[in-house]
Amino acid sequence: MTGRKSFGSDNHAGAHPEVVAAIAAANTGDASPYGADEWTTRAASDLADAFGAAGAYFVFNGTAANVLGISLLLRPFGAVICAESSHLHVDECGATERNLGNKVIPVPTPDGKLTPELIKPRLTGRGDEHRVQLKVVEIAQVTELGTCYSLDELRRFGEFCRAEDLYLLIDGARLANAAAYLGCELADLASYADVLTFGGTKNGAVAAEAVIVMRDEMAAQFTALLEDKLWLRGALHANAMAARLAAGLADAPGVTIRYAVQSNAVFAALSADRITALQREWKFYTWDEAENVVRWMTAFDTTEDDVDAFLQSIRASACE
Amino acid sequence: MTGRKSFGSDNHAGAHPEVVAAIAAANTGDASPYGADEWTTRAASDLADAFGAAGAYFVFNGTAANVLGISLLLRPFGAVICAESSHLHVDECGATERNLGNKVIPVPTPDGKLTPELIKPRLTGRGDEHRVQLKVVEIAQVTELGTCYSLDELRRFGEFCRAEDLYLLIDGARLANAAAYLGCELADLASYADVLTFGGTKNGAVAAEAVIVMRDEMAAQFTALLEDKLWLRGALHANAMAARLAAGLADAPGVTIRYAVQSNAVFAALSADRITALQREWKFYTWDEAENVVRWMTAFDTTEDDVDAFLQSIRASACE
Amino acid sequence: MTGRKSFGSDNHAGAHPEVVAAIAAANTGDASPYGADEWTTRAASDLADAFGAAGAYFVFNGTAANVLGISLLLRPFGAVICAESSHLHVDECGATERNLGNKVIPVPTPDGKLTPELIKPRLTGRGDEHRVQLKVVEIAQVTELGTCYSLDELRRFGEFCRAEDLYLLIDGARLANAAAYLGCELADLASYADVLTFGGTKNGAVAAEAVIVMRDEMAAQFTALLEDKLWLRGALHANAMAARLAAGLADAPGVTIRYAVQSNAVFAALSADRITALQREWKFYTWDEAENVVRWMTAFDTTEDDVDAFLQSIRASACE
Amino acid sequence: MTGRKSFGSDNHAGAHPEVVAAIAAANTGDASPYGADEWTTRAASDLADAFGAAGAYFVFNGTAANVLGISLLLRPFGAVICAESSHLHVDECGATERNLGNKVIPVPTPDGKLTPELIKPRLTGRGDEHRVQLKVVEIAQVTELGTCYSLDELRRFGEFCRAEDLYLLIDGARLANAAAYLGCELADLASYADVLTFGGTKNGAVAAEAVIVMRDEMAAQFTALLEDKLWLRGALHANAMAARLAAGLADAPGVTIRYAVQSNAVFAALSADRITALQREWKFYTWDEAENVVRWMTAFDTTEDDVDAFLQSIRASACE
Repeated sequence: MTGRKSFGSDNHAGAHPEVVAAIAAANTGDASPYGADEWTTRAASDLADAFGAAGAYFVFNGTAANVLGISLLLRPFGAVICAESSHLHVDECGATERNLGNKVIPVPTPDGKLTPELIKPRLTGRGDEHRVQLKVVEIAQVTELGTCYSLDELRRFGEFCRAEDLYLLIDGARLANAAAYLGCELADLASYADVLTFGGTKNGAVAAEAVIVMRDEMAAQFTALLEDKLWLRGALHANAMAARLAAGLADAPGVTIRYAVQSNAVFAALSADRITALQREWKFYTWDEAENVVRWMTAFDTTEDDVDAFLQSIRASACE
Repeated sequence: MTGRKSFGSDNHAGAHPEVVAAIAAANTGDASPYGADEWTTRAASDLADAFGAAGAYFVFNGTAANVLGISLLLRPFGAVICAESSHLHVDECGATERNLGNKVIPVPTPDGKLTPELIKPRLTGRGDEHRVQLKVVEIAQVTELGTCYSLDELRRFGEFCRAEDLYLLIDGARLANAAAYLGCELADLASYADVLTFGGTKNGAVAAEAVIVMRDEMAAQFTALLEDKLWLRGALHANAMAARLAAGLADAPGVTIRYAVQSNAVFAALSADRITALQREWKFYTWDEAENVVRWMTAFDTTEDDVDAFLQSIRASACE
Repeated sequence: MTGRKSFGSDNHAGAHPEVVAAIAAANTGDASPYGADEWTTRAASDLADAFGAAGAYFVFNGTAANVLGISLLLRPFGAVICAESSHLHVDECGATERNLGNKVIPVPTPDGKLTPELIKPRLTGRGDEHRVQLKVVEIAQVTELGTCYSLDELRRFGEFCRAEDLYLLIDGARLANAAAYLGCELADLASYADVLTFGGTKNGAVAAEAVIVMRDEMAAQFTALLEDKLWLRGALHANAMAARLAAGLADAPGVTIRYAVQSNAVFAALSADRITALQREWKFYTWDEAENVVRWMTAFDTTEDDVDAFLQSIRASACE
Repeated sequence: MTGRKSFGSDNHAGAHPEVVAAIAAANTGDASPYGADEWTTRAASDLADAFGAAGAYFVFNGTAANVLGISLLLRPFGAVICAESSHLHVDECGATERNLGNKVIPVPTPDGKLTPELIKPRLTGRGDEHRVQLKVVEIAQVTELGTCYSLDELRRFGEFCRAEDLYLLIDGARLANAAAYLGCELADLASYADVLTFGGTKNGAVAAEAVIVMRDEMAAQFTALLEDKLWLRGALHANAMAARLAAGLADAPGVTIRYAVQSNAVFAALSADRITALQREWKFYTWDEAENVVRWMTAFDTTEDDVDAFLQSIRASACE
């Protein structure tokens, strides 16, 4: 598709050219299927090293990664607790319930971030055979609202989970953006978790997400993502473009930024008329129709010119 | 078990003697199994008549009744919405998720009663393939907090569901108590619903609950419950005993009734010390430890003397 | 239901009068629900003792008992192997697949009895992630064809399962009849199994089956069944009535017994016309329409007169 | 991977260069995700046209295609019947049971091909609530044993299914090879089916399989497969290489071809020693260890030189 850069979602971006090149380069001769090829072995090994993990496994998409991750941690009567705004609860069409049969317990949060304090009052009914047994805490790093948990918040979560005999699962569809924002290593983000997912698709890979298992145990394209920290270069760039967009909005009349910009997402409120006008030209989603909040996402391939042109349109829309 | 009457739950009461007598009377000669016997046929027919329903089906317990009822109304991507305090969400150990694979969406309510207004803001994402599709509204009549929906509230729910293309499922584990409170027929309670469950166990039956299907389609003991409105006599009595208990508490120092007493449940707050003291002698559950709220349930076989002796203990506990 | 004794199935018989009496006797005063009452505790303890088991759990019917038993032994990728004619595969409407999601692998057998030799060639694909992993061997004692495994056959199965890292689950819906036939204790039948089910319903109980767990870990009516070996008295009688029926058929023209009569079932072949004529008067099932095989079941309450009258009808049908 | 051509499976071959080129060409600019892009729309439309179908949907692999296909045709109590050697039953790790909860009924066949005659005796128990209801007949075209159903056999299956109120699902992981063998159009293979799967992966696509729905309702790479009948060119070539291999084996001492070679698979029996010797140099699977049967698969990129070198090794192995 040609035309203007989409600010709809980082998965509107295509595959990273280095990833496509890596696929083409790997596509010579025969290889064992079902993950027994040399690239998969190497990618899994590289990923496990980067995360300080016991093992890494590959799936086709982020929903499958969450389902596989949870399946490793729950028995039939177990439950997972998550933010009410989480991808797991809202955007996966009930995949956890359907595929695993486990209850998902949503918790309202002010900014998409779960806290131990929000979970504690729900740790009731333990040992009661009428009640599901809460066992997995799922947090997303980056959250659906673009916010990030600090390393200190993660540490507190890890301690809380250990003290309460809970597992910590991190949905890392945008984990690279969090590492870019926090300026830390993937291993730092992983050290308090039991299982993480690591999103390739939103970082320029083709149908490839990883499940990282910290305590026990991916593909050619992931190796490309890992080499030279391609995952980080892309994420740093995407975050920088979001920051440029947010900075440009600071003095834009009638536009309010709703959440801290801590990744590649900018949530903003502006009038319904302006949203309609902008969407004629630009692609993005309305997040909350009642409150006229929109979500603007940047990606590894968003350019400064894209952002500046978009800002110009936003400002122009104020005058219509 | 001998000893003092339990105020723990109406399912602490045994089977109604008339039900046991009916089982014994039916236990002569051979009969076709799996529901093809004459008593089941007659009981199903009688129940369908009493509810103005298309058909009635029998299961062993209330959780199975809810699961079967929901299974009739949801496709794999469908969801059921219910009060956060509901039996369906809290006390069935995730049976809907495990057995049907469908998402359950809990909504906080002030008094256990769901309203169209609480549901409306959650009717988003229709047609979005990432999201479960809300299709069943589940309300309990009587709710877990002992409150009842008025006939007018039921009518509004029926109209709302029809307008929004939703189904209405009523968890009727204590439906008899609601009919006794509202002074109405079972058919009046059923007329706005698509599927209801009808609890036999809490009315003195043995492992028998019914699923009532209003638009398309029980056993010896249910026939006994239906004859001479045994279900109503028992429920009227249980409600009257709860009312007597509540009346007796009106001038009891240090005891506050928390919800309207509209069935056979009294929720009350009193000091933790008094709860502990009372539980040494009497059987009942603490509902909310943080707020010192207890639940006192009456049953078809609670006597005035049971209530009065309990009231005396409650008053005495204030002086300790 | 009045009228002639049914030879359709042992579950056409009602509840044993001693069981109904035990229920009535227990029905005094209040008790804790959900299995926390004194009778359940005692019955579970008595059953565990009788089987030399770690624990006993109660469910409402035989299908639930099989599903619960298998759920204790299989992981999501595991499979259960059973006779193609088994109740588990044929008569439970896919309950194992639907409720547990595990594959059931049926094996054709000559007489309803599985053998280690029939299983061995199917122990392939171990460790292959494309294939389900065979883990549970399910055999029924008595089988659907009325045959019994000898204690020696059970011992060989137990050794085979241990050597091949398999679990042995015994469907004991008619285990009492097998013990009566083999003249052994329940504990003898259990000693090579990991999990057994123990049928109450076909022995005169009301909606009560037990799951017996041999290595780790019911109700008033089960206690009645266990007291004075009521389960055995009923089963001995039922078996004796089947033996009487078989003996009476030995010289009946045109009737061939198809399987060894080792319990309370007689499978016989006779002409389609005679089957039709007999079914006008008597209740029983045609097992195999193509081969005109019928199944005649006796129960704890089948009398010698019932058998003799039935034999007279069978002989008379030869002359029509 | 460099080195000798694998005869292990057609999925050991990489992606077709034209497919990789198509992916790279499509990878410009942004596009809507989740199948709402222009290539997906066009590929789905092209596929529907080629099959005379109502619609085409894309999934990541063959197991998912079978699961999705079956899910469209079965209610919770329904069952699918298939050949005991089928991929569905043997190689999908119980995905149908786990994901759908439906029973899979395997039928032994002489050559991997199911027939109406093999199914008829299993059409019993209809309307019996104890039994699963047989509703879907699954056949694979090409079968796991490399055999094909003729158009006449497909027509008979279609008539049988219609007469018996059954659905016909065709597992088409190698459908292109069947079309190449039979010299017919995809639409000819589809005309008697209700749902088909169409394998891209074994034809050179990347993680892309299609579910073709005949009566109601895919991606860039599929478009490449459809353009200029790339799917057929590859399949014709693969079949021709299998035929060349089979022809070369005709006079090879000690090697017996086991099934008709009707696609890109050659099943052959030879001594265990020769198998071991050959596998030191060449990659292929032993199909049946007890009978020393091996499976040799060719692919779109197998060359005449590959086949001839392999034949030379096979002949040489006779002399060791």
